[in-house]
Amino acid sequence: MTSNSPTAEERLAKLGIHLPDAPMPFGAYVPAVQTGNLLFLSGMLATSGHAATVVGVVGKDLDVKTGRQAAYTAALNVLALTKKQLGSLNRVRHVVRLGVYVAAMPEFTEHAKVADAASELLRDILGEETVSSRLVVGVASLPFGSPVELEVILEVHA
Amino acid sequence: MTSNSPTAEERLAKLGIHLPDAPMPFGAYVPAVQTGNLLFLSGMLATSGHAATVVGVVGKDLDVKTGRQAAYTAALNVLALTKKQLGSLNRVRHVVRLGVYVAAMPEFTEHAKVADAASELLRDILGEETVSSRLVVGVASLPFGSPVELEVILEVHA
Amino acid sequence: MTSNSPTAEERLAKLGIHLPDAPMPFGAYVPAVQTGNLLFLSGMLATSGHAATVVGVVGKDLDVKTGRQAAYTAALNVLALTKKQLGSLNRVRHVVRLGVYVAAMPEFTEHAKVADAASELLRDILGEETVSSRLVVGVASLPFGSPVELEVILEVHA
Repeated sequence: MTSNSPTAEERLAKLGIHLPDAPMPFGAYVPAVQTGNLLFLSGMLATSGHAATVVGVVGKDLDVKTGRQAAYTAALNVLALTKKQLGSLNRVRHVVRLGVYVAAMPEFTEHAKVADAASELLRDILGEETVSSRLVVGVASLPFGSPVELEVILEVHA
Repeated sequence: MTSNSPTAEERLAKLGIHLPDAPMPFGAYVPAVQTGNLLFLSGMLATSGHAATVVGVVGKDLDVKTGRQAAYTAALNVLALTKKQLGSLNRVRHVVRLGVYVAAMPEFTEHAKVADAASELLRDILGEETVSSRLVVGVASLPFGSPVELEVILEVHA
Repeated sequence: MTSNSPTAEERLAKLGIHLPDAPMPFGAYVPAVQTGNLLFLSGMLATSGHAATVVGVVGKDLDVKTGRQAAYTAALNVLALTKKQLGSLNRVRHVVRLGVYVAAMPEFTEHAKVADAASELLRDILGEETVSSRLVVGVASLPFGSPVELEVILEVHA
């Protein structure tokens, strides 16, 4: 990042994106655990509060476009939780791993298109230099019927 | 942890929990790999020996209560393997990541209730200060027909 | 590794295995991210270029033998990507985690047999002393219809 690049917080403000409240755990776990300079986030769903914003299986109940909206919502939750944990999005050095779990039918093949909606938001806010490795999997179902869940491991600036 | 808190081994004894033999690999892999102070465990199933203690899909063959029993059995295997690898459960500093894979139907939504049975046992033995980040996913099926598989990354005391 | 053991590159040459081109990303992510001495690879599929070499669900469209061939193809992609990232396979110190996602039916139970084809290739090339912890899961579907996806975290020599 050159000294002239905008920061993640500046990009967020410029794009006029309003982050939701960071999701709270709904069980015997914590939102995130830091070990060394790695921050492991709990799975982020397409939720607002403890309810899914959209429910269903992509390729059955939902089309790819709706799946992408769910991935975007889950990625907003990733940013909200990250900001709450670190104080500022500027402390993210790398998204080491982005796992995208899509509730999908056996015949479904367009998982990557759904996942891209999450990858693109994280890249647009956190910056090209933070872009993740990625794992995309189609699963049977997700908590609360969410069509998408995101697994995130971040490397943070000390 | 204050100096008056019981240790993990003391909690285990107090609760009268008898750990099973640690599961052995059934393929070309090892039970766990340590890198730095992180210990990655192989996936722990609801097994005794190389057989599943219960077989089926939650929401189809099995109800939530039976799924919770499977999650508890898998968590006992996590504790048994951890003790075998580290010599003592007291060496666990954090459960960095707990992944809970539940064999579940597309319509199933109560994955978190199943996962809590594993989270609660780990918390009750290893202590509140070790509690994990968590990822819960509903999958098509698991090795040997186990309804639950646990993914665990631990941070250990040097 | 004793000083007389062959290196990974020597084993590859001796077995006459020709690595394919390393898979390119098909979205807003990178092939791998290194943090400290850990290298996180993006999910490797049974693909050549951006097309699956075989399509289907194990236990429905495909038998275990075909699933094993897909796991072998995905493991070749792991080796190809690792060599491209590190310059030499000899720089792998450990496969810390091998995750094997198999597109499988709810009734399927032989996931471990499919996964072994990947584990065995990695062991035969990278060496017994690198053998991984492992997580094996049956999922609904995978990108491009691939029957297998591999998640890999490596510890590398400095």
